[in-house]
Amino acid sequence: MASDPTLAAPIITDDQLLSHWQGHRRVTRRVLEAFPDTELFSFSIGSMRTFGELALELLAMDVPMLEELIEERPREYQPPTANTKEEVLRMWDEHTAQIDALWPRLPAEIFQQTKTVLGQYTSKVYDRLWCVIDNETHHRGQGYVYLRALGIEPPPFYLRD
Amino acid sequence: MASDPTLAAPIITDDQLLSHWQGHRRVTRRVLEAFPDTELFSFSIGSMRTFGELALELLAMDVPMLEELIEERPREYQPPTANTKEEVLRMWDEHTAQIDALWPRLPAEIFQQTKTVLGQYTSKVYDRLWCVIDNETHHRGQGYVYLRALGIEPPPFYLRD
Repeated sequence: MASDPTLAAPIITDDQLLSHWQGHRRVTRRVLEAFPDTELFSFSIGSMRTFGELALELLAMDVPMLEELIEERPREYQPPTANTKEEVLRMWDEHTAQIDALWPRLPAEIFQQTKTVLGQYTSKVYDRLWCVIDNETHHRGQGYVYLRALGIEPPPFYLRD
Repeated sequence: MASDPTLAAPIITDDQLLSHWQGHRRVTRRVLEAFPDTELFSFSIGSMRTFGELALELLAMDVPMLEELIEERPREYQPPTANTKEEVLRMWDEHTAQIDALWPRLPAEIFQQTKTVLGQYTSKVYDRLWCVIDNETHHRGQGYVYLRALGIEPPPFYLRD
């Protein structure tokens, strides 16, 4: 099909960005579930953080970032505390609902605006969102190695439903 | 700032998508460089593939996918062969240049069209591209664990320049 510049077809829509993120979050939830309770906050490789600690980092970035963008009120990076898989999964599900509720409140033009979030990062908003998703993918990849090292088959990476 | 629907601000532009991808590819190149030659195709954890094999998977998807999308000629998934870090880095750099050269030939409206690529995957093109980038981030996260297990400090994940 020939290119038609008058189409102004989007590369990606905001709904698609949200769906992609929540798809990743479903995979990460399955990785959390796959960990034995006893290993989530104890097992690691090469002096890295446990997967439980990595999940708390993710929870410190997702909803707080959206709240800061929408409310235009500075937020600090502050991971929540938890010591059990049950607590992490409960917070994960709360954030899933909060992300869905907050997302429609992002103004259409915000994605190309430059913002500082969580007192640390300044870039265009699409890039901030994408870096948070990338950070989840990066750390979840590490969780896959932990599961394999524990002799546990991880959930398929490519199934996002 | 109030939302102005007449702005039709993009979430992300095609140039930004390319920059994001090439930024990730620079990080992956640094991870490849950080591996000792002797470990790239021998070290792994939990019966997983070596980071060298994972890199060959990435090279089987990036340029072939773009060529298939642009030429509308079916391509198969076929990883290249290599046994040394030098060979992988040479192919990596060739693909960096090829991606930059191919990218402007993607028609503006293709990102929202549904295509099958590499004989395996069917979805909208933005999703195909994003899944290839995600796959790189996922496997590179695994490479970080390998490096840490080898006692090697990986390059910063968040520096993309």
